[in-house]
Amino acid sequence: MAAKKKKSGALNEIGGVDAPSSLNTSSAKHIQQKRLQKIPVSEIVKGLLEGDKVMLSRAITIIESSSHKHQKQAQEIIEACLPHSNKSVRIGITGVPGAGKSTFIESFGKMLTAMNHMVAVLAVDPSSSISKGSILGDKTRMEELVKEENAFIRPSSSGDSLGGVAKKTRETIILCEAAGFETIIIETVGVGQSETAVHSMTDFFLLLKLAGAGDELQGMKRGIVEMADLIVINKADGDNLKAARLARTEFNRALHLYPPKESDWTPKAVSCSAMKNEGITEIYELITNYISLTKENGFFEARRRSQNKFWLLQTIENQLKKNFYERPDVKKELEKQLQAIEKNETTPFEAAARLLAMQQDS
Amino acid sequence: MAAKKKKSGALNEIGGVDAPSSLNTSSAKHIQQKRLQKIPVSEIVKGLLEGDKVMLSRAITIIESSSHKHQKQAQEIIEACLPHSNKSVRIGITGVPGAGKSTFIESFGKMLTAMNHMVAVLAVDPSSSISKGSILGDKTRMEELVKEENAFIRPSSSGDSLGGVAKKTRETIILCEAAGFETIIIETVGVGQSETAVHSMTDFFLLLKLAGAGDELQGMKRGIVEMADLIVINKADGDNLKAARLARTEFNRALHLYPPKESDWTPKAVSCSAMKNEGITEIYELITNYISLTKENGFFEARRRSQNKFWLLQTIENQLKKNFYERPDVKKELEKQLQAIEKNETTPFEAAARLLAMQQDS
Repeated sequence: MAAKKKKSGALNEIGGVDAPSSLNTSSAKHIQQKRLQKIPVSEIVKGLLEGDKVMLSRAITIIESSSHKHQKQAQEIIEACLPHSNKSVRIGITGVPGAGKSTFIESFGKMLTAMNHMVAVLAVDPSSSISKGSILGDKTRMEELVKEENAFIRPSSSGDSLGGVAKKTRETIILCEAAGFETIIIETVGVGQSETAVHSMTDFFLLLKLAGAGDELQGMKRGIVEMADLIVINKADGDNLKAARLARTEFNRALHLYPPKESDWTPKAVSCSAMKNEGITEIYELITNYISLTKENGFFEARRRSQNKFWLLQTIENQLKKNFYERPDVKKELEKQLQAIEKNETTPFEAAARLLAMQQDS
Repeated sequence: MAAKKKKSGALNEIGGVDAPSSLNTSSAKHIQQKRLQKIPVSEIVKGLLEGDKVMLSRAITIIESSSHKHQKQAQEIIEACLPHSNKSVRIGITGVPGAGKSTFIESFGKMLTAMNHMVAVLAVDPSSSISKGSILGDKTRMEELVKEENAFIRPSSSGDSLGGVAKKTRETIILCEAAGFETIIIETVGVGQSETAVHSMTDFFLLLKLAGAGDELQGMKRGIVEMADLIVINKADGDNLKAARLARTEFNRALHLYPPKESDWTPKAVSCSAMKNEGITEIYELITNYISLTKENGFFEARRRSQNKFWLLQTIENQLKKNFYERPDVKKELEKQLQAIEKNETTPFEAAARLLAMQQDS
């Protein structure tokens, strides 16, 4: 029965991935919401904690919903899941389009499920909040992993801001952990601040790279290489093998230029062929080594604590700024003060004092 | 007469540098304040605009004062100076203690004064806000430059926060520009966020480095190399010459790994011997090239505008946060929520919502 439930969960998930456009129509949305309302929260939570992927999927949909009713339910679900969360290894994966992220995650994920590990794949894609597209929405992607009993794949949630998407992803992690998933992979494309956001919610950060991209390879993207615990040069096969090895050497040299990491881990560059399943086991071993090292030296726990604090303060500060800057009178005065600065009539500090005086007036 | 005034200004400045400890006693402070109160603001401004260094020095002291009366005067002075500001080239210089910053600035500054340029040297030193020390306070430093008619050297102002120190430095820049100084050098030691602050108030950022510091040289300090428009390997003389050249090559290679700058300028690494006055003219030429390039392509003006906006928003946001976090009830609740997160009883987002609800209550 449980197995059957799980199976239908997987199928349901595929369905969701298959038909995102049809679900985006308002009538489909309406039907979906009606259906969700029928199941009591207690039942959703019960199923989720038993590892039922249909229920997990529904719980995530509730979390992603912006309706007031769902937000209240979402809170209940999260509170019930919290005591069962925190037990997974969270891996962030980034790379430019074309680096082979899906193929890599499929290969890596299938290795894990073959070891009876439970793997969840989520995505943070701020571009989808604008285009309403989704980096995991393509039905042809990860088509083997999606069929695995122990895998759960969720397309990226949409939202009107990166902060909103990040909040939903963080909460989805909690749900997946409560459902028993031991490895959570969070994929992102290198757009804007999404990589920093994913780095701030994962234990291990993997940067997927391509060799032979010419001088593009030389350009160490601002801050991304610095965040990486592991750089993987993908597509190290066929004609590309030599270039991949060269890139690996080059990145290993570049990594030496950075100061040692707080985790005591020395970031490495390796190469692999996700398509041919080569080098994937070695990557898993490196991640395992990292987890052992950081659990032993206390960095793993300390980092999760500081990530929690980061998201707490980040959420507060974003809202404080929003509350202030979105006031119509502040908007108007800010424009005026910026012009005055431009004309050399005031300093930024004097202008700030005038704007801040408005906070007291409210 | 004007010349005499200027001369006494320079001497007064030396006196200030000579005896900072005696001036720190409360009675000396009292006498100084009494003396300052005697001169009307209009006279201070008049002298300052004529290039009188005594008056400039007094105006800066008023700006640095935290007394309510002085703050009102400071505002008047700044407003009078603003129309005459903005015309200098602002150069930020950073480097670890021992890199030879003073010797370099002395050599560079004297080259400028020999060309009849007017040079002001300021310092941002957040450590002095704690130790009450000052990186320009040492009387043996820049002892030749300090005697120059066209040079003005001001030890770093103290303050209880980097934000406070930065505000005072930004305002001092305005005063120096109004007094006719054409090149403003802002020195900082590599402590905490001071380099970012100086980078955000200058047109050109110079990183002074030492060769032969072993693996320390390898470590590209997080973010600093990235900010530099020019890396200068100092002490390229005697036994150190070979190591300096090697370091220069290495840094030039490392600089290639960074993406192109928005300014269209390609950062370079050069070597010099400030002690022997070697390579200083070449550095001046590079800076001149940079200024020509960025004035032509519009980056110079665009950057100053964005710096103004940065300091405006930065000041507002710091104060918004301070107003919130310093409330005793918020402090207490924050502690409580952090503990609840630790115990897995709540999420950072739920905790943030509870804290933010307090803003509405006030």
